[in-house]
Amino acid sequence: MSEPRDEPGMPLFAGIQTFMRLPYDPEVGRADVVVLGLPFDVSTVYRPGARFGPAGVRAASGRLAGASYNPAQRIDVFEHLTAVDGGDAPVVPGNVERSLACMQAAVARVHEAGALPLCLGGDHAVTLAELRAAAQRHGQLGLVLFDAHHDFWDDLYGERHGHGSWLRRAFDEGLIDARRSTLLGLRGSPGDVDLDDMRELGFAVFPFDDLMALGTGAAASAVERAGGKAFLSFDIDFVDPAFAPGTGVAEVGGPTSAQALALLRACRGREIVGADVVEVLPDLDWAEITGALAATVAYEIVTLVACARAATVEGGAP
Amino acid sequence: MSEPRDEPGMPLFAGIQTFMRLPYDPEVGRADVVVLGLPFDVSTVYRPGARFGPAGVRAASGRLAGASYNPAQRIDVFEHLTAVDGGDAPVVPGNVERSLACMQAAVARVHEAGALPLCLGGDHAVTLAELRAAAQRHGQLGLVLFDAHHDFWDDLYGERHGHGSWLRRAFDEGLIDARRSTLLGLRGSPGDVDLDDMRELGFAVFPFDDLMALGTGAAASAVERAGGKAFLSFDIDFVDPAFAPGTGVAEVGGPTSAQALALLRACRGREIVGADVVEVLPDLDWAEITGALAATVAYEIVTLVACARAATVEGGAP
Amino acid sequence: MSEPRDEPGMPLFAGIQTFMRLPYDPEVGRADVVVLGLPFDVSTVYRPGARFGPAGVRAASGRLAGASYNPAQRIDVFEHLTAVDGGDAPVVPGNVERSLACMQAAVARVHEAGALPLCLGGDHAVTLAELRAAAQRHGQLGLVLFDAHHDFWDDLYGERHGHGSWLRRAFDEGLIDARRSTLLGLRGSPGDVDLDDMRELGFAVFPFDDLMALGTGAAASAVERAGGKAFLSFDIDFVDPAFAPGTGVAEVGGPTSAQALALLRACRGREIVGADVVEVLPDLDWAEITGALAATVAYEIVTLVACARAATVEGGAP
Amino acid sequence: MSEPRDEPGMPLFAGIQTFMRLPYDPEVGRADVVVLGLPFDVSTVYRPGARFGPAGVRAASGRLAGASYNPAQRIDVFEHLTAVDGGDAPVVPGNVERSLACMQAAVARVHEAGALPLCLGGDHAVTLAELRAAAQRHGQLGLVLFDAHHDFWDDLYGERHGHGSWLRRAFDEGLIDARRSTLLGLRGSPGDVDLDDMRELGFAVFPFDDLMALGTGAAASAVERAGGKAFLSFDIDFVDPAFAPGTGVAEVGGPTSAQALALLRACRGREIVGADVVEVLPDLDWAEITGALAATVAYEIVTLVACARAATVEGGAP
Amino acid sequence: MSEPRDEPGMPLFAGIQTFMRLPYDPEVGRADVVVLGLPFDVSTVYRPGARFGPAGVRAASGRLAGASYNPAQRIDVFEHLTAVDGGDAPVVPGNVERSLACMQAAVARVHEAGALPLCLGGDHAVTLAELRAAAQRHGQLGLVLFDAHHDFWDDLYGERHGHGSWLRRAFDEGLIDARRSTLLGLRGSPGDVDLDDMRELGFAVFPFDDLMALGTGAAASAVERAGGKAFLSFDIDFVDPAFAPGTGVAEVGGPTSAQALALLRACRGREIVGADVVEVLPDLDWAEITGALAATVAYEIVTLVACARAATVEGGAP
Amino acid sequence: MSEPRDEPGMPLFAGIQTFMRLPYDPEVGRADVVVLGLPFDVSTVYRPGARFGPAGVRAASGRLAGASYNPAQRIDVFEHLTAVDGGDAPVVPGNVERSLACMQAAVARVHEAGALPLCLGGDHAVTLAELRAAAQRHGQLGLVLFDAHHDFWDDLYGERHGHGSWLRRAFDEGLIDARRSTLLGLRGSPGDVDLDDMRELGFAVFPFDDLMALGTGAAASAVERAGGKAFLSFDIDFVDPAFAPGTGVAEVGGPTSAQALALLRACRGREIVGADVVEVLPDLDWAEITGALAATVAYEIVTLVACARAATVEGGAP
Repeated sequence: MSEPRDEPGMPLFAGIQTFMRLPYDPEVGRADVVVLGLPFDVSTVYRPGARFGPAGVRAASGRLAGASYNPAQRIDVFEHLTAVDGGDAPVVPGNVERSLACMQAAVARVHEAGALPLCLGGDHAVTLAELRAAAQRHGQLGLVLFDAHHDFWDDLYGERHGHGSWLRRAFDEGLIDARRSTLLGLRGSPGDVDLDDMRELGFAVFPFDDLMALGTGAAASAVERAGGKAFLSFDIDFVDPAFAPGTGVAEVGGPTSAQALALLRACRGREIVGADVVEVLPDLDWAEITGALAATVAYEIVTLVACARAATVEGGAP
Repeated sequence: MSEPRDEPGMPLFAGIQTFMRLPYDPEVGRADVVVLGLPFDVSTVYRPGARFGPAGVRAASGRLAGASYNPAQRIDVFEHLTAVDGGDAPVVPGNVERSLACMQAAVARVHEAGALPLCLGGDHAVTLAELRAAAQRHGQLGLVLFDAHHDFWDDLYGERHGHGSWLRRAFDEGLIDARRSTLLGLRGSPGDVDLDDMRELGFAVFPFDDLMALGTGAAASAVERAGGKAFLSFDIDFVDPAFAPGTGVAEVGGPTSAQALALLRACRGREIVGADVVEVLPDLDWAEITGALAATVAYEIVTLVACARAATVEGGAP
Repeated sequence: MSEPRDEPGMPLFAGIQTFMRLPYDPEVGRADVVVLGLPFDVSTVYRPGARFGPAGVRAASGRLAGASYNPAQRIDVFEHLTAVDGGDAPVVPGNVERSLACMQAAVARVHEAGALPLCLGGDHAVTLAELRAAAQRHGQLGLVLFDAHHDFWDDLYGERHGHGSWLRRAFDEGLIDARRSTLLGLRGSPGDVDLDDMRELGFAVFPFDDLMALGTGAAASAVERAGGKAFLSFDIDFVDPAFAPGTGVAEVGGPTSAQALALLRACRGREIVGADVVEVLPDLDWAEITGALAATVAYEIVTLVACARAATVEGGAP
Repeated sequence: MSEPRDEPGMPLFAGIQTFMRLPYDPEVGRADVVVLGLPFDVSTVYRPGARFGPAGVRAASGRLAGASYNPAQRIDVFEHLTAVDGGDAPVVPGNVERSLACMQAAVARVHEAGALPLCLGGDHAVTLAELRAAAQRHGQLGLVLFDAHHDFWDDLYGERHGHGSWLRRAFDEGLIDARRSTLLGLRGSPGDVDLDDMRELGFAVFPFDDLMALGTGAAASAVERAGGKAFLSFDIDFVDPAFAPGTGVAEVGGPTSAQALALLRACRGREIVGADVVEVLPDLDWAEITGALAATVAYEIVTLVACARAATVEGGAP
Repeated sequence: MSEPRDEPGMPLFAGIQTFMRLPYDPEVGRADVVVLGLPFDVSTVYRPGARFGPAGVRAASGRLAGASYNPAQRIDVFEHLTAVDGGDAPVVPGNVERSLACMQAAVARVHEAGALPLCLGGDHAVTLAELRAAAQRHGQLGLVLFDAHHDFWDDLYGERHGHGSWLRRAFDEGLIDARRSTLLGLRGSPGDVDLDDMRELGFAVFPFDDLMALGTGAAASAVERAGGKAFLSFDIDFVDPAFAPGTGVAEVGGPTSAQALALLRACRGREIVGADVVEVLPDLDWAEITGALAATVAYEIVTLVACARAATVEGGAP
Repeated sequence: MSEPRDEPGMPLFAGIQTFMRLPYDPEVGRADVVVLGLPFDVSTVYRPGARFGPAGVRAASGRLAGASYNPAQRIDVFEHLTAVDGGDAPVVPGNVERSLACMQAAVARVHEAGALPLCLGGDHAVTLAELRAAAQRHGQLGLVLFDAHHDFWDDLYGERHGHGSWLRRAFDEGLIDARRSTLLGLRGSPGDVDLDDMRELGFAVFPFDDLMALGTGAAASAVERAGGKAFLSFDIDFVDPAFAPGTGVAEVGGPTSAQALALLRACRGREIVGADVVEVLPDLDWAEITGALAATVAYEIVTLVACARAATVEGGAP
């Protein structure tokens, strides 16, 4: 047997659970990417529990600790950027609007520090808080949305703020530019929203069937049209629930996780200024498979940012 | 083998899932007891999911279908009263106050029909809606509360309506009479609430340790002091989480289900005009043990009502 | 925040659990489609529990409440037909034959009312009861069967009625016409049954490998050959157990739920007079993914019926 | 570190899963006790799955491998007897009567070999098969029954053989002597059976409440009155479902496992000629706690047999 | 509704998961108590997984955040001491001895900083590492052990270091004084260890049955005899597995969590210089009930330390 | 109803749990294939529990009992070979090297009896023990490895023997010939191992993306290059965790079980002299889907052996 060594290092299963076991920095110092938890699920219209999403994704992300080289994109991620875990934003149980304000303030602090916020939801309503903060810093943004639902209801049960209407609010408030925005993966009944109306407003909308026919080309098209600064939002219910049982409004008949990751990686080339992974419900997860997928999605987003930085350095200032 | 019979009857596992497979009567007709679901959990400050509580209790209650004779109280329950399942009250995802209003209206309809509402929560905030409706009909009430927590915070995170402050609101609004109210089973840290302050207001407060020392005598005392009309509220977290894992704010170190049922049965003699069983979270339940306990608690409450009716008939009008 | 509204409507998670929250009509009134539960699993030769299948599918189907517009088939389903939930048929625990008789009688009542019965199993033996009732009304039928198993054993352990032999019984009794019948998705060892023998009897048999090679063409072929009135039966074990863990005799190496739904939708054009979704075991389900898939399958079958009605109206009487 | 040793022995978690890792002897050779699985659950009127009971109990029993000294009874069990695992009896899916015949034959073989059969159920109907075999060998027996239910229905849904009526059948067939029989732990609604009628027939009946008041004295009384040869049957639903969630017809409000074991050990002194542990459903178990309790109950029964043998040797022939 | 407030505070479910949400201080600064995770389970002889124990207990401990006033002991804990979470010690997967060395070093650092280490296991072998570090600082210690097993095997499968032999090693190495040590709660087969031999060595040994008969007096006796500095070790399998399913070598028939907490609180008066809570396996936990119990045990231990400090201040230097 | 038959045969769910209910032969007699359990997981660097893998695979394999005809390969397997279950090898909890020695000895016994050992892991380190035994008998072997990880680390945390370094050790010890070895399915970060370095050593390495592009051709290529005697190792984490949640180091974004089985079947034509299925963790499995997949993989490997025997007989000696 080998000689005992004094410094074995910390195994993947050990240590305080930050995202990818990155340093914990609640003060949001000088990193390029700050991972921020948004433990909010008050607005959900079906199964709640996404408030535990940030904790669940962090727990599962231990497996990725030290994964600097990403073979799928052939890049050593942390050679091109630094990242920390900024902890969670405070939220207010039982109050949607106060929670949105708290979360917006926390995200804004990250932008103000010059870093890119990568947020872990939380139900999808958190994206409105993120977009408000991002647009304040960067102006109107393009959007790349992976989601089984359009989230473009005007209201749900008379409530105008929630995880089914945040996209409509963001559009109404001018935070996003529909003509530079793409929706990928819609399926299930759209209710009283007509996707053709969304298309007329400028959105590119790829229902799941179209998406599977187009393959990664759909994502490439999203990259093309979403010229300029963009926000990337990944709802974990984009994939089939067999790959992500831990979510609140699952839609059967979706893509595999391999298909989803291929689409996400095809977004390489976009200038991303904010991103999130949302709707993870650890209590409904099994064997951490949803958490591991969400953590990998977040890691691939960090990789996209690293790729953009590498390209910028190589190609000169954008 | 016996000859095939034409009418085997419906097995316990079959049929649309009403409480105890009672008739479904959304119109709230002429029954003595109406079971009403209050699928609300927006105000919870820890683990949400009690919105599925009514469905979970109904599913587990199939085992009690046809259980008219209750051997513990030696009474044939449905010889003394009739009961129906009135379905659920509507609620508003994401909005506490609108939900409270909807629930209050639904409970009030039951009172107006002259029936006793037995509600299935839902987080404990639903009890405020029930008490508002009950007090409107019956005036100020005594309260018998089985709960691991005092629920007497003035506010939580700045919110004044929620499952940790409903009792304070009910007291402030004059819906209950503290001097005729008893709290049973408190344990865990009370935060910034001093139980002695509650006692000075008139409440009888039995922390878990005292309760175990007193046994069913504590409940008997609750019966004595809560003279006049009373509301009985049973938070499933009253029992140890081994007996009710499916709840949102579990407190270890509580009573067994056998101890809990004995205490509940000792409330025989009270004049109950409204009651509920709350904080059941089916997604955290296992093998329906929480659901079965909650269903049994509800059944024992119906039995208490039957006992009171039987006593009234025997003894003349109260 | 928006003004409180008086009528928020009933959220998807609330209310008595009928299929898609359709009206409960145990009297089987004048609807076009009647959903009927067949909570029977006495004949299963491996894992029992399908008796809770109807309840599980109904619970998960709440997510589909109000899903009138089906974007996959571009049709507004409930503009072309009406549907109710007729509750469950009675069954006899421990007795296969008496149970079959009870279920047949219940299904026959639906046919007699002029409605199409869409049944929720139950183990696959329930289909024999359905076919007996259907053939009585409609004569010999074609069959479209989605299943990982052939269910054509002559007997199992000496018993001739069961979920592995119902198809043989139905063939022997002349209820189905093999030449108008198609089996899709078989895999695993066929035991002592030779699929070529089945082909000689007239059945079209597509093992899983062939099915994946042919794609939706296989289903289209099923539509072609199954001219005339047909019965559609969907065993949830048709899909890979990753997509439907909640079943009794799972076969690994099957299609994804997306592939399954595409095949099912390709059956558009068939004249369906009866249908079922069977072998759902909620106790083995996780996060309701099996229940949600089964509910969606049932919804897509209702859509097929709506499509047929729409076509008939447009094209004149058949 | 210690030197490697060549023969570490087999850890508790390893090896083919026989009961307590006893030798597997399907030929039922010359052991004193033969453990026999009865994987039957066709007659269950609520939740099925007890067919996996023998496998579940065996899996959990590995923890007891080598537990020869039982400190609770201060006896070295396998110094006084030998035991083997005889495997399972065959059963017939879907057919109650044929299954009973198969099981009776398998148990009779054990009696014929002069051994004591200790059976692992299966739903409680298996006890009828065991009693038929035991009475054939030993004549009419006393019965000690730990159970939450009386199992004395005349029929259920028109079926006369099943897990709710086996005791009535055994009484009708003269297999047991009511005056030497004791029922312990009943609770919940008795349906249309009057316990006082049972008492008139001679049974000693201790509902749960009485049992808790009497403590181990109740069991001692059972020992007294059940003079002569007796059969001991332990339905795992005797304990509260918190201690045995893996069962089919759970009754809340029962004893703890510590209370149950104390009662069982107090049966020391009875002459047991057959015994079983029934109604274990591994699919509803969690962390093997039900399986471990059932395995311990079986081990304590083996201990009772060892105690009787030790007493006989010490005291001379009975 | 109340006016939005700017600083709602962080809810219990939010934030990086330290124990009780205490400050994270990997440098082990100037706190009185340092919580340290020991994520080691390589030596377990049955079910592994305790390496995730520290993470599981921390996750569940969020519910206790801010629980400064402990009503059971009537003390405001954090008025008398300060505490931090020091993170985890490194361990070496696959190597028991190197892991013990790493853990000992980490615990020693806490002692060197003048703080009391409260460790979260890990399988019980971690206690040897803790005792080595503690004895180096404080000399030979008394021991108060809550455990279902004696852990006094000389070796298991030829290995001398492990979770079944740590107590023997600690005794052999002179780390503990048997005459000041008490074992509480033993049950199940002791294998080839004779408890009377342990008693002869000086240990006070209370099997479960004796313990229940004595009640909190047993613990009081432990306090008496364990005069001088003591180490307190709580194996979560001390309680019945219904209250702690998430453990590796569960023993049925143990105390309830209420009984366990009462015994633990009765240790008030002991001078504790080190403590741990071990054998928590989150993967086998359900609804966090094991984690919550373990977190509460740890919190009660912190309370005992606070009580001792309060007594010292009141009573003068010891 | 059919007449009772005397010999119904043993249902799939009954009987002592050997692999595919094959005869249990701990003496390793004269069968062609011996299934051997290797219940070892001490070396795992993330989630342990594979020690229960053999038991879990055996339990799930009951479904395959009697599956002699394999339709995918069109061969009647047990017409060409005989097989038994040889039970488990002993292992030493807490000691990697002693465990490897024990396992190697057990596997060697099978080779010495002239049989092919098909082993059920255990973590992947068991393959080193198997290769040592196999090479002793058959000389240097080719390797076909289905795995999400390369397992070619030189050491992990300073330990040179473990489930992440067994392939490196096997290569260093000359047990395998890299130029006749193929790795299929790698994904995730390779850490400090460069796959191009492996290729330079002679290994054919197909990351997941390449594998999906090549399809079964990749496996065919593996067959070609792995001329001569080969060892086939299947790590269940090769498939996406949706299809095998019960594993210790899951990697999202992998193949479906249908894709995996197609690749495995494409290995037909290889001369296999040893094989295993490893890294199954039943505690993390759900509804036995991982166990059923692993059992099917093992069955398909037996089929490959049968195919090779059939080809040899037909074509003469190789």
